[in-house]
Amino acid sequence: MHTDPPLDPADWEEFRALGKRIVDDIADHLAGLRERPVWQPVPEDVRASFRTGLPAGGMPMAEVYEEFRTTVLPFPRGNIHPRFWGWANGSGVPVAAYGDLLASVINCTLGSGGNAAMMVEQQVIEWLQQALHWPAAGSGLLTSGASMGQVTALAAARVAKAPSTTAFRDEGAVASGVQFTVYGSEETHHSVDKAVELLGIGRRFFRKIPVDRDFRIDVGALRATLRADREAGLHPLCLIGNAGTVNTGAVDPLRTLLEIAREEDLWYHVDGAFGAFAQLLPSHHALLDGMTEADSLVCDLHKWLYMPFDVSCVLTRAEGVLEAAFSSSADYISSTAGGPAAYPLAFSDRGIEQSRRFRALKVWFALKTHGIGTFAEAVAANVAQVAHLAARVEAADDLELVARSDLNVACFRYVWPGAAPDAADRVNRGILNRLQTEGLAMPSHTVLDGKFVIRVADNNHRTDVTDFDFLIAQVRAFGAELRAAEED
Amino acid sequence: MHTDPPLDPADWEEFRALGKRIVDDIADHLAGLRERPVWQPVPEDVRASFRTGLPAGGMPMAEVYEEFRTTVLPFPRGNIHPRFWGWANGSGVPVAAYGDLLASVINCTLGSGGNAAMMVEQQVIEWLQQALHWPAAGSGLLTSGASMGQVTALAAARVAKAPSTTAFRDEGAVASGVQFTVYGSEETHHSVDKAVELLGIGRRFFRKIPVDRDFRIDVGALRATLRADREAGLHPLCLIGNAGTVNTGAVDPLRTLLEIAREEDLWYHVDGAFGAFAQLLPSHHALLDGMTEADSLVCDLHKWLYMPFDVSCVLTRAEGVLEAAFSSSADYISSTAGGPAAYPLAFSDRGIEQSRRFRALKVWFALKTHGIGTFAEAVAANVAQVAHLAARVEAADDLELVARSDLNVACFRYVWPGAAPDAADRVNRGILNRLQTEGLAMPSHTVLDGKFVIRVADNNHRTDVTDFDFLIAQVRAFGAELRAAEED
Ligand SMILES: Cc1ncc(COP(=O)(O)O)c(C=O)c1O
Ligand SMILES: Cc1ncc(COP(=O)(O)O)c(C=O)c1O
Repeated sequence: MHTDPPLDPADWEEFRALGKRIVDDIADHLAGLRERPVWQPVPEDVRASFRTGLPAGGMPMAEVYEEFRTTVLPFPRGNIHPRFWGWANGSGVPVAAYGDLLASVINCTLGSGGNAAMMVEQQVIEWLQQALHWPAAGSGLLTSGASMGQVTALAAARVAKAPSTTAFRDEGAVASGVQFTVYGSEETHHSVDKAVELLGIGRRFFRKIPVDRDFRIDVGALRATLRADREAGLHPLCLIGNAGTVNTGAVDPLRTLLEIAREEDLWYHVDGAFGAFAQLLPSHHALLDGMTEADSLVCDLHKWLYMPFDVSCVLTRAEGVLEAAFSSSADYISSTAGGPAAYPLAFSDRGIEQSRRFRALKVWFALKTHGIGTFAEAVAANVAQVAHLAARVEAADDLELVARSDLNVACFRYVWPGAAPDAADRVNRGILNRLQTEGLAMPSHTVLDGKFVIRVADNNHRTDVTDFDFLIAQVRAFGAELRAAEED
Repeated sequence: MHTDPPLDPADWEEFRALGKRIVDDIADHLAGLRERPVWQPVPEDVRASFRTGLPAGGMPMAEVYEEFRTTVLPFPRGNIHPRFWGWANGSGVPVAAYGDLLASVINCTLGSGGNAAMMVEQQVIEWLQQALHWPAAGSGLLTSGASMGQVTALAAARVAKAPSTTAFRDEGAVASGVQFTVYGSEETHHSVDKAVELLGIGRRFFRKIPVDRDFRIDVGALRATLRADREAGLHPLCLIGNAGTVNTGAVDPLRTLLEIAREEDLWYHVDGAFGAFAQLLPSHHALLDGMTEADSLVCDLHKWLYMPFDVSCVLTRAEGVLEAAFSSSADYISSTAGGPAAYPLAFSDRGIEQSRRFRALKVWFALKTHGIGTFAEAVAANVAQVAHLAARVEAADDLELVARSDLNVACFRYVWPGAAPDAADRVNRGILNRLQTEGLAMPSHTVLDGKFVIRVADNNHRTDVTDFDFLIAQVRAFGAELRAAEED
């Protein structure tokens, strides 16, 4: 005698059949990725289909899926393909997608409350602490990305370091009268600029310190800037160390920065958006030395832990610092003596989000299925692949290695004797364009020392070394063609 | 001759089989929700299973799923159950979960780039504009929740309204020397407090204006506060109108607030986290009159549009205001002449997030499958159900209706003649506790006029009126028992 819920399937058999069809298609699609172009442009008729108005009535779910299959699936960003190495996108562990499906079905929101989902999320944070050798006494929060993590960490820093006479959250910046400053190398990701702006600190008070030839922060310049700022009456707040810059994968001298932060009483934040996961490799502990003593760290599981978007984590050294910056109370979310609202943990007190998707479940699924050891192997393989690429670039006299890292990033370009700078840039733009638009491979680009370079960031568990052999061959072939055209 | 990707399934048949098993279980679980408790406590042995350390090696994916099925699935938050009406959680449209599965498989990140996912997200924003009668000339961004939406809207407001001599993003609050103030009723959701704090404005500069007996902002008090603040040399920035307060579902006089905002040159932001979707009903256009002329609006699709977490939208009246607050440039994300990076749209320029989950896909799936008409029916049904509940409460002499709304929220309590205030609170706490811990129904609570009240917020497409008849019967029965115990 209950009415049928209008938004549940009218026919559960139809729902089952479609789900099974989707599962089969997913398996086929993922197993056959190599046979597909990495990327292809969206044709005009498909674009037009995305301009149709709000659907008034419904249609069979299988038809909706068929539309997805023909208009969305063939025209993706490309990052699940074995030859995608653009920006810092991860590749996506398939079994994690089942975790995401189940998260959407059970549909828990992870702000607070006593239920298994909250416990799974807490467990995943603890696993990350263990994987990264982060102190167990610390705390953490899953966020949608490192960008949110930077905001969260800087907000915690500000509350922790505000002069004790000021209740910063209540007073705000103007009334407290303190001009904070933030420090990091000029290679720091622009999400830090955005965070500094959002907090009202002012972008110009994010002091971008020059880098050395290896794109690591110039410690002498940092010290000088700190001194000058203090003399000018500013209030240095936070020092940022990069464990893997986006451009080149450079790792700042993290322990030296830690020492400076302690001397200067600064909050020490490490951006390990992708690089933090090199900590899975004993070979890289020396490189990252100092990272795990920071006050906060961001790491993107959707980058170099290959998780589907979105899931990132901000870890803090001290317990309670996130709550100090974000906890709030209201009658409608107050706790009760027993029942679901009696649980002591509230993730919504650790950041901006009140409603929170159950991001941990996919991580839980993937870590249990594969074990952290397999993730470490994949990370090690990416490091080796990029080292292989770099070696091959160095061995070729028509290629120049412009930057390489001990992580998973390398930047290179096609060169020839006597090439004018703008001709070289044109040719390299042309090479990248052909690689991408022909769907062959998808590095991205950046500009280093004024040069346009092809940039590979290998957060891809599907790549193997032969993919980079293929890349090298294509770059050289396209380079030769485009250079010849330049010289005509 | 390619190596097998270490994090892809070793055996795709195993992956298929598990996927199909999951699909069957999902259908059984969702079709059988009524037979289950709404909520139950997590037993100690299950809790212990969430304290095990980081898995070193892997295990068969079917065993991981089995663990999920026995330790996570039975102990959820409860919000997909037909008798859950706590906080403002939505119920989750099943077909949308397939959208989320596919989003995790194709794993596009929606910052920028030319691909179908970007076009789907743009289309979903346009659909929302149409559904809510929002001006087509405006802009929008999907976010993880209304909390992020408030932050995003306030950041846009600040940049738009900063005195023209100041480049706010660059200078920040202290150097620009302007103390902004924000206005909204004292019933405004605490996410606005958090946003104001995060932006460095200072919580005490969020002026909480008293409400009338219907929990709507007192316009006279608002005007007086504005006047006093201007006289004190403060800089009024933003006025917030509530289209559905969290406590009681009250709707502020939105057009009057719009007029005040225009007179006073304030940014007008409407929090329609759930209430905005009443706009789907012609019967409610008068109540929401003025909403669609605001400068910005947040609406949570994971609340009263029943989408799985997370998906929310911030809409702006003017194009470009989000970009003015958030756009940034860097060599590594610069565009190219052709290919994937040539696409002109960049959602990452409209907010904090750089990596962005493909939240739009589940919405696209659900809106195409069911049509907006079916969503409107579900919203109308919730309104009617809550009206039915309110009428039954009013008709019962042992129940008091403390607040009701024209939306989907009602607050009531068990009463008896001569009840002492703290005895009444104890009894109502006891009733709620029994409802929740016995898994019978899940309202939440709040405090109104100093009284502990049982609060129903019906964002649930699975509820029908008989569920509220059941609730009434339980509350009366438990109330009688607990009152008797009080009187012993
Ligand atoms: C070093 C670094 N930090 C921060 C970010 C921002 O991360 P997200 O896209 O998850 O917000 C990135 C993204 O590429 C990055 O490479
Ligand atoms: C009126 C109102 N505004 C804002 C929010 C915050 O929304 P979210 O949880 O999506 O961040 C809520 C959540 O309950 C709400 O009811």
